[in-house]
Amino acid sequence: MLTRLEATEKILAAKAQKNLTFTAIAAAVGRHPVWTTSALLGQATMTADEARKAGAILGLEPDVVAALQVIPTKGSVGKDVPVDPLIYRFHEITQVYGTTIKALIHEMFGDGIMSAIDFTMDIQKKEDPKGDRVIVTLDGKFLPYKKW
Amino acid sequence: MLTRLEATEKILAAKAQKNLTFTAIAAAVGRHPVWTTSALLGQATMTADEARKAGAILGLEPDVVAALQVIPTKGSVGKDVPVDPLIYRFHEITQVYGTTIKALIHEMFGDGIMSAIDFTMDIQKKEDPKGDRVIVTLDGKFLPYKKW
Amino acid sequence: MLTRLEATEKILAAKAQKNLTFTAIAAAVGRHPVWTTSALLGQATMTADEARKAGAILGLEPDVVAALQVIPTKGSVGKDVPVDPLIYRFHEITQVYGTTIKALIHEMFGDGIMSAIDFTMDIQKKEDPKGDRVIVTLDGKFLPYKKW
Amino acid sequence: MLTRLEATEKILAAKAQKNLTFTAIAAAVGRHPVWTTSALLGQATMTADEARKAGAILGLEPDVVAALQVIPTKGSVGKDVPVDPLIYRFHEITQVYGTTIKALIHEMFGDGIMSAIDFTMDIQKKEDPKGDRVIVTLDGKFLPYKKW
Amino acid sequence: MLTRLEATEKILAAKAQKNLTFTAIAAAVGRHPVWTTSALLGQATMTADEARKAGAILGLEPDVVAALQVIPTKGSVGKDVPVDPLIYRFHEITQVYGTTIKALIHEMFGDGIMSAIDFTMDIQKKEDPKGDRVIVTLDGKFLPYKKW
Amino acid sequence: MLTRLEATEKILAAKAQKNLTFTAIAAAVGRHPVWTTSALLGQATMTADEARKAGAILGLEPDVVAALQVIPTKGSVGKDVPVDPLIYRFHEITQVYGTTIKALIHEMFGDGIMSAIDFTMDIQKKEDPKGDRVIVTLDGKFLPYKKW
Amino acid sequence: MLTRLEATEKILAAKAQKNLTFTAIAAAVGRHPVWTTSALLGQATMTADEARKAGAILGLEPDVVAALQVIPTKGSVGKDVPVDPLIYRFHEITQVYGTTIKALIHEMFGDGIMSAIDFTMDIQKKEDPKGDRVIVTLDGKFLPYKKW
Amino acid sequence: MLTRLEATEKILAAKAQKNLTFTAIAAAVGRHPVWTTSALLGQATMTADEARKAGAILGLEPDVVAALQVIPTKGSVGKDVPVDPLIYRFHEITQVYGTTIKALIHEMFGDGIMSAIDFTMDIQKKEDPKGDRVIVTLDGKFLPYKKW
Amino acid sequence: MLTRLEATEKILAAKAQKNLTFTAIAAAVGRHPVWTTSALLGQATMTADEARKAGAILGLEPDVVAALQVIPTKGSVGKDVPVDPLIYRFHEITQVYGTTIKALIHEMFGDGIMSAIDFTMDIQKKEDPKGDRVIVTLDGKFLPYKKW
Amino acid sequence: MLTRLEATEKILAAKAQKNLTFTAIAAAVGRHPVWTTSALLGQATMTADEARKAGAILGLEPDVVAALQVIPTKGSVGKDVPVDPLIYRFHEITQVYGTTIKALIHEMFGDGIMSAIDFTMDIQKKEDPKGDRVIVTLDGKFLPYKKW
Repeated sequence: MLTRLEATEKILAAKAQKNLTFTAIAAAVGRHPVWTTSALLGQATMTADEARKAGAILGLEPDVVAALQVIPTKGSVGKDVPVDPLIYRFHEITQVYGTTIKALIHEMFGDGIMSAIDFTMDIQKKEDPKGDRVIVTLDGKFLPYKKW
Repeated sequence: MLTRLEATEKILAAKAQKNLTFTAIAAAVGRHPVWTTSALLGQATMTADEARKAGAILGLEPDVVAALQVIPTKGSVGKDVPVDPLIYRFHEITQVYGTTIKALIHEMFGDGIMSAIDFTMDIQKKEDPKGDRVIVTLDGKFLPYKKW
Repeated sequence: MLTRLEATEKILAAKAQKNLTFTAIAAAVGRHPVWTTSALLGQATMTADEARKAGAILGLEPDVVAALQVIPTKGSVGKDVPVDPLIYRFHEITQVYGTTIKALIHEMFGDGIMSAIDFTMDIQKKEDPKGDRVIVTLDGKFLPYKKW
Repeated sequence: MLTRLEATEKILAAKAQKNLTFTAIAAAVGRHPVWTTSALLGQATMTADEARKAGAILGLEPDVVAALQVIPTKGSVGKDVPVDPLIYRFHEITQVYGTTIKALIHEMFGDGIMSAIDFTMDIQKKEDPKGDRVIVTLDGKFLPYKKW
Repeated sequence: MLTRLEATEKILAAKAQKNLTFTAIAAAVGRHPVWTTSALLGQATMTADEARKAGAILGLEPDVVAALQVIPTKGSVGKDVPVDPLIYRFHEITQVYGTTIKALIHEMFGDGIMSAIDFTMDIQKKEDPKGDRVIVTLDGKFLPYKKW
Repeated sequence: MLTRLEATEKILAAKAQKNLTFTAIAAAVGRHPVWTTSALLGQATMTADEARKAGAILGLEPDVVAALQVIPTKGSVGKDVPVDPLIYRFHEITQVYGTTIKALIHEMFGDGIMSAIDFTMDIQKKEDPKGDRVIVTLDGKFLPYKKW
Repeated sequence: MLTRLEATEKILAAKAQKNLTFTAIAAAVGRHPVWTTSALLGQATMTADEARKAGAILGLEPDVVAALQVIPTKGSVGKDVPVDPLIYRFHEITQVYGTTIKALIHEMFGDGIMSAIDFTMDIQKKEDPKGDRVIVTLDGKFLPYKKW
Repeated sequence: MLTRLEATEKILAAKAQKNLTFTAIAAAVGRHPVWTTSALLGQATMTADEARKAGAILGLEPDVVAALQVIPTKGSVGKDVPVDPLIYRFHEITQVYGTTIKALIHEMFGDGIMSAIDFTMDIQKKEDPKGDRVIVTLDGKFLPYKKW
Repeated sequence: MLTRLEATEKILAAKAQKNLTFTAIAAAVGRHPVWTTSALLGQATMTADEARKAGAILGLEPDVVAALQVIPTKGSVGKDVPVDPLIYRFHEITQVYGTTIKALIHEMFGDGIMSAIDFTMDIQKKEDPKGDRVIVTLDGKFLPYKKW
Repeated sequence: MLTRLEATEKILAAKAQKNLTFTAIAAAVGRHPVWTTSALLGQATMTADEARKAGAILGLEPDVVAALQVIPTKGSVGKDVPVDPLIYRFHEITQVYGTTIKALIHEMFGDGIMSAIDFTMDIQKKEDPKGDRVIVTLDGKFLPYKKW
């Protein structure tokens, strides 16, 4: 049985060999590029149909297609504080703006959290003559703390 | 001289006593609520005019108004892995979706990062009968890696 | 303005002085002992009415009553690995049975998590001639991972 | 000699190939699904008879059957703070409610702990129109601190 | 209300001032010196009678006597790896002989643990012309892992 | 050349295949079971004669016999805080009783430590109708701090 | 598909076999030695043309040449605090002079940072009879904190 | 006696009150702004004359002037991985370019290190229409590893 | 009762006020400067006579003299990896030469350790026209591992 | 190309097979045993001539001889706090005597450090009827902090 890590390596090799983008694979799978990429990188679970479509465009072996349907142990970053500069900047946003986010969500919604499970993310490119901008939209259900 | 931490405590006490929201203070300061909150919580630097306006609505002493104009040592979360559940969910998003974000930004922009400095954040409430949603928008300039 | 930590200290002192149990305070507040205790220990937020009742039975000053209504920064254990033997056993259960819990919840519910927010906990004593038993019941809503 | 980790991998592969649930294997072994799963995942020790039954339904080689009878080095989560969101929620419960649990067990039982050894766990699904719920019951013997 | 830490400081000051040994205090309390010392250092809970006797010999204020009866948050060493050389040697014994102890207890008793709760400890001096020896005896109930 | 880790694995495999106990091997080697086990697990150094005897009863290859005579890099527990429950209880004893042990050894012997080198350990089973007990005896030379 | 780590190993082997300096390879690639070295060590991304030139002088296989064009997960030092003395000294400079650098950049530029992305580095040897000196020049764009 | 930390706080308060820049204080002291700032922030040792001059321009009490002449325990950043974004970027440069710096210094100088003690640093502002640049120059003596 | 830390602060203040060196205090105490300094810094225990002499030359209050006779909790460096450059170099020596020291002591003495308790240290200045040298001599009893 | 780690393993195997001591190899290389051992264990760099001599006495393959001439990434101990008891004692000396060493070097030399680069170490056996002693001499150039 293929581990999820081995499956990811085979998927990335196939993607490189076929010169496909994540966006193109997502279109074939019929899902948003962010979700599709997270599933291909071992952070989400595909249905049999989604995995079959991903396997078809990437030319994956059946064991890789099977691995995509196994619920993974999630967590893509090896260390608590990521070293890669792109990923670190998101860690920094949490470190610098964490109490700000907490204060404002509580002001707007009361005691509770933004779900990271009932959650979608979008990444867009906004062209700008002073330098294009990355727009990341996090959309999570507010979950109020239950009292009992 | 007041430390930034002491200034934050006095600001939160004044805000509680006057029963003000961060949104109301932001309107008085003339800045976005996210930025204003981050400045009041010791993560950004106000101009003399912004600090004066914040001081006026909150009834702050001159030393607090002065402290708001000092460039702070940033970082609002004490630990590398935050324990508070609301803030932890943002850490989890980086841990689970970190490689996805990296893959897609590189696919869309090439090698580089999303700036956390030339950066704005917005937090909105989207009403939804199945449960209101928190919409957090991160808007950062793409900085391509310089070659030399 | 009282910090939540200072409020907790004053509450515990009042509880000791009045020789009250958490169960008795919970009855006065009209909430379950687990939730009431967590609120008194700075991990949940009381309404004005709940705080007023807690203040009445404990004889708390108005600033403590006010502090109980402020949404706290949660996290009651100072270290990632708790040292106190009673609390450590719960850490050990997660360390030893973590993958078991994950495997079975996924088998019963699919990909998702048990919420720790839409969540209640109960603690009971089951008398047993071979030694009484502690029965802790965790009851959390299953949140399926959203696809998009 | 097979390590326990290698045995676990072979067991999971056999389970996937035979399309068996942990619940079905537990029925064949004659033990509760939680305990059986923990043994199959390398956290508990089977008797020769239990291991034989597990081997029969899963079609395991004798060395895997033998490995199931070796007392393992326990601990299923690699890091002190687990990253997988499902397992993390249980860590969060200990972090947020740890002092509450301690206060109430002491109030009900005196000084001592809930055993994690003389201990059973049950996981059930409670159907609920607002979203099914996960019910996890921890049942551990209270061990009073000995004085001498 | 006195914290346990403050109580310990007052106890040590009184012990120094009265020039008492832990052994003498233990005799007055009617308990073993190891247990009595651990209680005085904030790691165990005295009954009202024990605390009264400790208070009498040490000349403690009522609030210190009361603090000795509160169940403490246990853990006397601040860091995971202790720095003090005497305490470190015990950490080293666990690090070097940990797997040996595990192998032999399992060989003698089966799967389970030595309890650190239903547990007593003794420390003796054995005179020896080549250098006196410290004899530490750990006596803990064997707790077999429950199956269910 | 065999690493000590590889030697340990071969020794455990031979022990399992021959169905030998550590106690039986110790008898053949002519050493105490605790010391013999620690040497077989890579924490102590055998003489040529001891290694030959261990090799004879276990049927070890010459390279394993040679490896047993190489002074090892000691330390059997991978992490600072062990996760395995049996080993953790010994860590907990150091954490909870560390300052007690320090106080009493200093009271009995003055400033110095209990050696973990000029040191022996014994593990015995004490039968008890309320549950058998594990008796671990640590016997270390007291080393007074040298002054100069 | 070659991982970036495997590519680096093959590059260093080829460099050793051909007895080339990083400076010579940089001249062939047409880039500064610092940037070229960082790309060869897996910290920057080459264009097809740069990779082709590096491959030509080093005699690399096509899969290594391809790997040089893949955007890497950056971070060349395994630990947060590097152990190698040469690299540690740069860590020490940040630890000792970090607040000095912060104070002076803020004094000269206002609130913001020196970019590590829009950034170049140069390393020179300055001959000196009392001992040659290493001159490292860091040249990063100042990024002012955006307000919104 | 004033701790170095208390001295730093008094110096920063005096600097703020007198509205002085570090550059101006450095001119008064007769030293480079980087060195002077590091001394004022508790990372270097002033002579009596330098401390007297610093005291004169800042209007410091004699105990602060004395503290500036005490050799400090160095280290200005509390954590191994700094959180403040400006300081973090220097940590990131070490993490990303550490092996590059090591490879090139060894290529240019042989085995050894760049001293962080026989070391000077300069920080300059380079005006640039596309955004001003921070130029940090590190100038350390190369210390070859001694053989013996 | 004075804590050892408070005693150290008072001693350093007295030493500064009286303008004494550690060497001079050691001469008055009648002990080696290294040992005397370690005792004054809270790492060793003075006899009544030694403490009295130290108190006489430094003009210490009786409570400080008493504190010098209490066996301290040892460990003078707050962090596992020291940040101060002078102390770090000794950490680096252990990190770089640790396995070398181990290999050679084992080659010369067999399995065992160099005691850090039956241990003396000397620090000398060796004048050298190319730069004076620090000579640190560690002299510890070899303790062979006991077999049993 | 051989990694330095692989080279070390081959060297230790050859040393064991030829039954050579580090001292004997050092004599053949013409260097001090401490330096030679550190080079063989991957912590220093040999010249071609030194490596050739080491290769001759040990019978090493050319790739091992080549590896000995590559400047290594230094650091021989895997963890910040070493577990092996012999190496730990040196860590303990730094932890317990760190501030003492700092105080005395500063008293004798002023502000600066003892170099760990312009540095030699010697290890000797001093016979003593009460137990032989290990004498470790550290000899490092004093580097005064540069002012500028």
